[in-house]
Parts: sequence; structure tokens; C-alpha cells
Amino acid sequence: MTKAYVLLSGGVDSSTCLYQACKDFGKENVKAYSVDYGQLHRKEMQYAARMCSQLGIPHTILKMSEQPASPLTDTTQNEAIPDKSYNDLGQGVSPSYHHYRNGQLLSLLTAHASADLKGDETGVIYAGQHAEDAANWAYPDCTAEFLGAQANAIFIGTYFRVRLSTPLTWLQKTDVVKLGESLGVPWELTYSCYHGKDLHCGVCPTCRSRKEAFIAAGVNDPTHYAA
Amino acid sequence: MTKAYVLLSGGVDSSTCLYQACKDFGKENVKAYSVDYGQLHRKEMQYAARMCSQLGIPHTILKMSEQPASPLTDTTQNEAIPDKSYNDLGQGVSPSYHHYRNGQLLSLLTAHASADLKGDETGVIYAGQHAEDAANWAYPDCTAEFLGAQANAIFIGTYFRVRLSTPLTWLQKTDVVKLGESLGVPWELTYSCYHGKDLHCGVCPTCRSRKEAFIAAGVNDPTHYAA
Repeated sequence: MTKAYVLLSGGVDSSTCLYQACKDFGKENVKAYSVDYGQLHRKEMQYAARMCSQLGIPHTILKMSEQPASPLTDTTQNEAIPDKSYNDLGQGVSPSYHHYRNGQLLSLLTAHASADLKGDETGVIYAGQHAEDAANWAYPDCTAEFLGAQANAIFIGTYFRVRLSTPLTWLQKTDVVKLGESLGVPWELTYSCYHGKDLHCGVCPTCRSRKEAFIAAGVNDPTHYAA
Repeated sequence: MTKAYVLLSGGVDSSTCLYQACKDFGKENVKAYSVDYGQLHRKEMQYAARMCSQLGIPHTILKMSEQPASPLTDTTQNEAIPDKSYNDLGQGVSPSYHHYRNGQLLSLLTAHASADLKGDETGVIYAGQHAEDAANWAYPDCTAEFLGAQANAIFIGTYFRVRLSTPLTWLQKTDVVKLGESLGVPWELTYSCYHGKDLHCGVCPTCRSRKEAFIAAGVNDPTHYAA
């Protein structure tokens, strides 16, 4: 028996992973986890909770360890997130980089998956990093190199019981939206904006990426953007 | 400029790493971190703090994420830690396994090291896993396989700024004690027992390993054991 544990932020990518996991293992074997790391865009966790409730799968919010400040957790730094697309930001450190976020998220979820397994059950962690996050090394903790290393660490460190599945690694965001659409993801229950207001701002890198992906995919975007 | 960040539990192995880091980079470039993950043997953190204070280096205690219960954090499970040596426990899951502990500790410390670096500084994380912890797959998150995967993930995930150094990977505990002795580790300021009482119990796997290592190394052991 294999159980799936989905790292669910509440955005487009992780929601697509959630629906993929349900397709792969049956929703009765899927659990979703959101992590509270002090993000200012806490609204995403409400969206994640609502989606799981509608889907009828367990949703847990885990509180993460003491974090160093970052543009995602510190109001003064958050103001500095530019109104640009990821493509226009070019090579190097993303202005919304949270220190080693995915390393921490995956480790925390691995611990909880490991503890949840009974008898000879095995587990699979689903995480939604995709090719556009990894492009230009904007987020190095979204690259195939990073995820491969994590997959090894997780498998070894759990007595070979938990594997890491990142089905979006090689997909562009547009293809993620197409995949999600084919899986029936209720887009109105997803949230992406790094500013965390009621409405998606529409101009931060994450909002731009979301908006453009829906248009390019030819999928109806139910999002209300402020701009 | 390279800065060293030491994962310091307060035991024999991590204390040896601390002194190794001071030797390698100069103590003015070393910071130590202990992690509060709800361990019942919290006493180790006091020992770690005292050692750093005596050495004159900064010591930070980080509070870890919500943890699943384990023999190290749960009083009822803690009682079940057998009075046996690791060797006598044989192959397989250690009775004092805390779910994915090292994956979580390393990820948390990586985030803080990454946030601490200024300009073009680079960082090295020191961690004290050794060959006896890894033997028989008792603690898979102490194996060279696991640590190598972590080293890759950490280096990639921090934009190639932070490396992982585990100088004890191939040492038996006896050799760790010899190394620590040569580096001048003040053993009376170290604490190992998983039961966390004032005195080391002397019979849990960790106490036995400590006791035997000092004897085999021919190094004076200042520890007062209850048994």
C-alpha cells in the first residue's frame, strides 16, 4: 500500500500535483499539507484548506521552524518585490527567494510522512516545482539537480520507504495549467499572489506568470486581478 | 571569506566538529546552533550553550517545526529505549530514530546560514554524523549516501554558496574521541544521554557508546554515570 503526501501551497502548481496524486493513488490514499512559515501571503492556506475540504481529503497546516526574514515573510522586504515577470528579472537570485524554502518544506513533510506510515506501507511526496521556477537559476531549489538530490536524501533517510515525486519538473507553467485543467483542478480555489491581499495584484512576478500561463494555455482564468 | 556554521547538539561528536571548525576557520568565523525539536534530553542544549560561552563564540537555539512524536520527544516511547549497545541492536530501524531528524536539522541550519552570509561570503555547515551511527543502517540519515545527497541539495539550493562538511563520516566513535581530545574538547561540557536526567544513565545505547569510546580511546572520561 502506497500513500501520497502532497505539499500544497494553494497555488496552481501544487494544486495540479494534488489532483495528479488523487488520480495516481485514489483520493482515499492522499493527504495534503500546507506549511505556515510566516508567509505574508497566508491567504493561500485558506484556499488550500477549501480545496481539500471540497475534495474530501485531510488537510494539515504545519508550523515551520524559526525562519530567517525574507521578502516573503518581512513586510519591508515584501514591498521590494518588483512588478516584473520572472523572464524580465534575468539570471540570478530571485527577489522573492526565501532561504532554502523547498529544502525545509520537503524535510518537514518527509518527517510527517515517515511517521504516518504503518507496517510495510510506503509513501510518495508530491511537490510542484516546475521548469519555469528553475529557469535562469532564479530558484535553485526548484531545479532538477536539487530535486534529484532531495529525492535521494529522502529515500535513504527514511529507510527506503518514502520517495519524492515532482511530476512538473520538466513542464512550463502553460503546460502545468493544461495538465491541471485536464485533471479538473477548480482554479477558483487556487491563490498565487505574493502580496497576500484579497485580490491577486496581477503585477508581481507570480501573478504575471499565472495570468500569462492561462492565456497561453487557452484555459479560462476565473481570477479577479486588481491590475 | 568563509564562515562556519556548526550544528551543535552538545554531545561528543558535534562538540568535536565545533573544535574542528574553529581550527579550520578561526573561532571568530564560527557560529554554533542548537535545535530545540522537543527532545526530552533538553539538557544537551545547556551544555552546548556553556561550551560556546567558554569558547567565546555565538550560540543560537532554533526552535524546530512541529514534529511527529518519537522516542526522543515522547515520554511513553522514551521509556522503551532499551538498555543495550547499538551493536547488540543489530540491523534496522533504531529504537531512538526521530523521523528524518538530520534532514530537518540540516535544512534549517542551511536556511539560517544562507541568510547570514553577506556579499560574496560563502558558508560551510559542520555536522557530526559518524560511521558508527551509520552502521547497520540504524540511522540512515547518518550514512555517507544520505550526507552526500544532502551536500548536493544544500550547495545547489543556496546558489552554490553553502557547503556541507561532515569530517567524522568515516570515523568510528573511538576515533572521534581521539580527534576531539587532540583538538582540546572540554569533555566535561558535553552531554549524550537520551534520557535527559542530571546524570548520564550509563546504560542507554548512547551512553554505552560514549563510555566504551572513551575507554577504547584511552582518554579520561570525566562523566558521572548513574550506572
